[in-house]
Amino acid sequence: MKGTVLYGPGDVRFEDRETPKIVEPTDAVIRIAATCVCGSDLWPYRGLQPINEPTPMGHEYCGIVEEIGRAVQSLKPGQFVVGSFATSDNTCPNCRYGYQSSCIHREFMTRAQAPVLRVPLADGTLVPTPDVPPDELVPSLLTTSDVLGTGWFAADAANVKPGSTVVVVGDGAVGLLGVLSAQQMGAERIIVMSRHEKRQQLAREFGATDIVSERGDDGVARVMELTKGVGADSVLECVGTQQSMMQAIHCTRKGGHVSYVGVPHEVELNGAELFFTHVHLHGGPAPVRRYLPQLIELVLNGKIDPGKVFDLTLPLEQVAEGYRAMDERRAIKALLQP
Amino acid sequence: MKGTVLYGPGDVRFEDRETPKIVEPTDAVIRIAATCVCGSDLWPYRGLQPINEPTPMGHEYCGIVEEIGRAVQSLKPGQFVVGSFATSDNTCPNCRYGYQSSCIHREFMTRAQAPVLRVPLADGTLVPTPDVPPDELVPSLLTTSDVLGTGWFAADAANVKPGSTVVVVGDGAVGLLGVLSAQQMGAERIIVMSRHEKRQQLAREFGATDIVSERGDDGVARVMELTKGVGADSVLECVGTQQSMMQAIHCTRKGGHVSYVGVPHEVELNGAELFFTHVHLHGGPAPVRRYLPQLIELVLNGKIDPGKVFDLTLPLEQVAEGYRAMDERRAIKALLQP
Repeated sequence: MKGTVLYGPGDVRFEDRETPKIVEPTDAVIRIAATCVCGSDLWPYRGLQPINEPTPMGHEYCGIVEEIGRAVQSLKPGQFVVGSFATSDNTCPNCRYGYQSSCIHREFMTRAQAPVLRVPLADGTLVPTPDVPPDELVPSLLTTSDVLGTGWFAADAANVKPGSTVVVVGDGAVGLLGVLSAQQMGAERIIVMSRHEKRQQLAREFGATDIVSERGDDGVARVMELTKGVGADSVLECVGTQQSMMQAIHCTRKGGHVSYVGVPHEVELNGAELFFTHVHLHGGPAPVRRYLPQLIELVLNGKIDPGKVFDLTLPLEQVAEGYRAMDERRAIKALLQP
Repeated sequence: MKGTVLYGPGDVRFEDRETPKIVEPTDAVIRIAATCVCGSDLWPYRGLQPINEPTPMGHEYCGIVEEIGRAVQSLKPGQFVVGSFATSDNTCPNCRYGYQSSCIHREFMTRAQAPVLRVPLADGTLVPTPDVPPDELVPSLLTTSDVLGTGWFAADAANVKPGSTVVVVGDGAVGLLGVLSAQQMGAERIIVMSRHEKRQQLAREFGATDIVSERGDDGVARVMELTKGVGADSVLECVGTQQSMMQAIHCTRKGGHVSYVGVPHEVELNGAELFFTHVHLHGGPAPVRRYLPQLIELVLNGKIDPGKVFDLTLPLEQVAEGYRAMDERRAIKALLQP
């Protein structure tokens, strides 16, 4: 089997690796129907997050179960499944509170940009669809594995309710699907901070009502203008930098909610400054497993079409071009087909 | 009139000042029934928060309305009133969202350790009692002005619900009244971090079920042991230092809630570290005005006795001894009688 390995900044290779097989009795091995490149893959690709050795890549996946370990009870070969980027037993206290991405047995997946994938804790991590879905639904089902699940968590963690005024900071795929999620949750007004025409257009398709192209203090000022000086009820921080975090916090009304769903990179929050903003803050790695059944159903019922975020489809062996296109912002998100 | 002025670290004077009078038509002037020293007064008293000039002190108060400005509509001379440490018009958008301590017209009170006090925005800041209360209820009514209101906000902002497991970090008066508040909100288990016997005892009277005397990592480990490795649902941070904040965050279960209600002093939160804790974080200056009617009613009905936090009562002119006793932790909280 060939799979994706990051050797260093800008150096993505598709090369021979051992084909995964069952290791633990709770494992499943799946044949990937589709995988993709995540915005978070770009941090190490850009050298902004160190890697110490050649690192297998990929954590978004769906496909057909090929084999299960002897302890796996809820799945069988031939089923189509989607799993979270974080494995979970789905039974520990953290899982039962709905924070499966903090499962006490969590592992972060990192080998999914490949044709075959071993998934630990298969019973607690994977969700099967009732039938094998038609090919045209595969991209949207793939999004539930991380990018939609993360956008959905962003909206949920920011307490989006019917009638809410929402700001989304970040026009990457997570931000765009945060827009879709906020719209599904009944937001009345969705303001997206973006200066990229194609992304603005997709944001509008997903339900954005306003676009703000200014950044930093100017962006905050514009949101304040749009909200009559009050700020937004819910702000989704979908970037992970100091600037984007402070922008999100300062766009929020007193008592409003800020969510943050991308690993913060060199972000420090001053306690006293945060104190006087009076915001609620919640985030972390999205507990995608909590939302998977609901999101899969929304896709299968045709209620949402999150697969639109894939504006580039490549054969898996051209994965390096997928990274390049996203790095250069030529593509919002690259789908990879084995 | 004489009033309290802080000249510098450890230098509290009770000295001649102009007697307050109506300045704005929205003001009231009240004759103080009782005032007190706040834990937050100790920051500048200890030199941990700079002051640039002799500073009048005091922001907790209740008393009898002496005079009202011509625009004041809801109050009349002779009424007994309690007000928040932060003034509010109670009509602006921030107030209507319940964040009166971020009112767009907010001023922080700072002259209440005196026999007479001018209160701006009287209609929106002061809450009258139905009748002039008996003297024995004055201490408890005084607590609603800040220390109880802040403890109540701590419990509310940490999402305390019936059945919750709660940790309170800090055994000052705010922490102790956070215990009382959590108990009123139905918490099943209330763990207090304290190494001070007298405070531990009062915490138990207010509803604490467990005492943890360890601090820092050892304190966190002890809470984890008490919660079977899961952490608490709700953690009230009632100190405002880096150590207490991190202790609070690490005592919280995944998806649990941390509140912080004292101005953080030199606290920096690392974004990535916070991210992986999966906590909800909310705090700020307590919107006491939101809770005043409810808290006053609980006191008048005899449901709560928060005035027990006053373990030292002094004539107002001995205010300097009140500061000293609290600084040296000889007293939990000092009541001052004009």
